[in-house]
Amino acid sequence: MSHSVKRDFPVWNIRRLLEPGPIVLVSSAWKRETNIMTMGWHTVMEFQPSLVGCIISNANYSFEMIRKSRACVINVPTADMAATVVRIGNSSGRDIDKFAEFELTAVRAQRVQAPLISECYANLECRLADASWIRKYNFFVFEVVKAHVATSPDVPTTIHYRGDGEFLIAGKTTRRYRRLFRPALLDS
Amino acid sequence: MSHSVKRDFPVWNIRRLLEPGPIVLVSSAWKRETNIMTMGWHTVMEFQPSLVGCIISNANYSFEMIRKSRACVINVPTADMAATVVRIGNSSGRDIDKFAEFELTAVRAQRVQAPLISECYANLECRLADASWIRKYNFFVFEVVKAHVATSPDVPTTIHYRGDGEFLIAGKTTRRYRRLFRPALLDS
Repeated sequence: MSHSVKRDFPVWNIRRLLEPGPIVLVSSAWKRETNIMTMGWHTVMEFQPSLVGCIISNANYSFEMIRKSRACVINVPTADMAATVVRIGNSSGRDIDKFAEFELTAVRAQRVQAPLISECYANLECRLADASWIRKYNFFVFEVVKAHVATSPDVPTTIHYRGDGEFLIAGKTTRRYRRLFRPALLDS
Repeated sequence: MSHSVKRDFPVWNIRRLLEPGPIVLVSSAWKRETNIMTMGWHTVMEFQPSLVGCIISNANYSFEMIRKSRACVINVPTADMAATVVRIGNSSGRDIDKFAEFELTAVRAQRVQAPLISECYANLECRLADASWIRKYNFFVFEVVKAHVATSPDVPTTIHYRGDGEFLIAGKTTRRYRRLFRPALLDS
């Protein structure tokens, strides 16, 4: 796992990171504690404001930390971090300090208390924008208020969870079909 | 594009198809019309009942058809269909009959009026389960009531939209990290 130089990234365009469906690491902070969880059930909801919806089970230790602090960071890991992603998902913040246990580097965020995970390709600072479906579905709507994205590579080798212990690893990116796109992209 | 033999698939496990974040084709029917749209903003929300949430813009011709019929089919295309996926996304059902225009085969669904797209790897018959965020966010919650999945290949080469005319094409699937998983998978 390596640390990369990051640049500010426009929050309205974070669909480029989340829309292909990578598994992500969600970091949180509450009082003097931090935690990290894996999360695979998320979707972009709006460009501006930059909204992301996701399911965080109330069985997770992170649930109350995020609900109370009304914030988190969504971090996008790459294939070199796959074993760590699994270990994070199979341990609980009730028992261990995950930053220490997995030797991850917490970097101070600019807009929220939750720390960025330096080793990840991208870090999206999020504030809770709508809590009204938390009780109904464990569904959180976050606004991405600040985004940090590695300057290289251009395209991260993300990992995508398929259930049953299997990961799909991102393959090639193609612009081959770009000429077919009209200005109003994929809007029917 | 080919047609594949399909089997019934347990609806609680459709996360295996949708969680990695493929772009999908949503088919609908209302009165004597059918339509197809591309959709990339979706997430699994629950295993049982099998819930999927997604954004369908009210600018889309499909929006009212789905809202009124309270149903749709979520179809999972593969890389061989990429050009068709783009063309579907860049045309409107207001102007053309997309099944005819793109030479796709509509197959009768079992539980909903909307047709299955035979050429797709998987077809998920969906009923609208919660309409309460349609006005607020264009967010639809569907229950998958019936799923049809191709018997081969085991893993589809799905395509994932990255914005800006770029597709990520699914790479390898790995079970290498499976031994690290504890029974309560990815639950922290």
